[in-house]
Amino acid sequence: MKRIPEHIGIIPDGNRRWSKRNGLKKEDGYVHGLEPGLKLVKAAQNYGIKELTYYGFTVDNCKRPKEQVTAFSKACVRAVKMAEQENTELYVIGNTNSPCFPEELLPYTSHRHKPRYNKNILKVNFLINYGWEWDMKNGWASHEIPRINLVIRWGGMCRLSGFLPIQTVYSDFYVVKELWPDFHEKQFADALQWYQKQDITLGG
Amino acid sequence: MKRIPEHIGIIPDGNRRWSKRNGLKKEDGYVHGLEPGLKLVKAAQNYGIKELTYYGFTVDNCKRPKEQVTAFSKACVRAVKMAEQENTELYVIGNTNSPCFPEELLPYTSHRHKPRYNKNILKVNFLINYGWEWDMKNGWASHEIPRINLVIRWGGMCRLSGFLPIQTVYSDFYVVKELWPDFHEKQFADALQWYQKQDITLGG
Repeated sequence: MKRIPEHIGIIPDGNRRWSKRNGLKKEDGYVHGLEPGLKLVKAAQNYGIKELTYYGFTVDNCKRPKEQVTAFSKACVRAVKMAEQENTELYVIGNTNSPCFPEELLPYTSHRHKPRYNKNILKVNFLINYGWEWDMKNGWASHEIPRINLVIRWGGMCRLSGFLPIQTVYSDFYVVKELWPDFHEKQFADALQWYQKQDITLGG
Repeated sequence: MKRIPEHIGIIPDGNRRWSKRNGLKKEDGYVHGLEPGLKLVKAAQNYGIKELTYYGFTVDNCKRPKEQVTAFSKACVRAVKMAEQENTELYVIGNTNSPCFPEELLPYTSHRHKPRYNKNILKVNFLINYGWEWDMKNGWASHEIPRINLVIRWGGMCRLSGFLPIQTVYSDFYVVKELWPDFHEKQFADALQWYQKQDITLGG
């Protein structure tokens, strides 16, 4: 492919609908989203993509029933640990001043500041207990995450749901109808193929 | 329809491509976007929509060749005047401290502050010489424009191009493949029909 997006935003939506369709409890879906996340990291590396940002969970998501909050929080911690095994540079961002932020991820919240030992390594960012209002009120707290070229959302909705409003001002959005636990590499390949045909103007 | 979006954002893209396809100069397309804008105002009134926000032109658009800047600026002035004839409450927002801002529209930049004589009147906002960076740097200059439920973009692209990043954090996006001068009410009806099936979560 000629035109590979440097930085892709991933909205892995549809875990709860997937659970329902598969006769599971709502909170049981998240763990089925881990393998997809890992496959996507590997695929991104193969395509030579430089950076991925996953929408983990938001401050507002934490208002859901406790079982769900525990389940997606655990899944996110595991997702970060799994990505760490794949020769990546990790960065976690979100409101750490809240009991909803998983302690285990605190060490990853400052990685962006470290000097890079390998320029060609895939950068993987996770938004954890993130909120767009929190981001804005803190003088654009997420400013170390650069502009996003392409946002891919699973689960059929065509919306950002508060995902990095500043970094996405010029992003192209691609929607995958299938739910996130039904991730397949072909969906990702199709998104990249679609991106080839989009004309970049950056508002000009 | 059961679920009518209160506030719709309109990105009327594709005027230059339309000109090219019709053997005209790039700058000749904008005037063909006026009738569509008027039809849309009337359709919105018929559906009982409360507010429309049009993406007129941006600070960055003004870097284009002079003939184009003159053409879209004139078209926007006419669009505002045309909307004014339709029993609407108008509001224009953008960087007025720039030669790119059309003088004739200055009187409309403060309308939002006036007391409303009729609550059921359609509000129509135009972004004129708007820039998302200008908006943010001025402490969210556009804050009087409320949250947008649905963004409809003509011209096939699925992106916001800097359109009100804060008001669109939870918006649904609908893309019309046809170019803006080829507007047809059916496209608008289809967008509203599609919106019926979208589930609002507001990030929860």
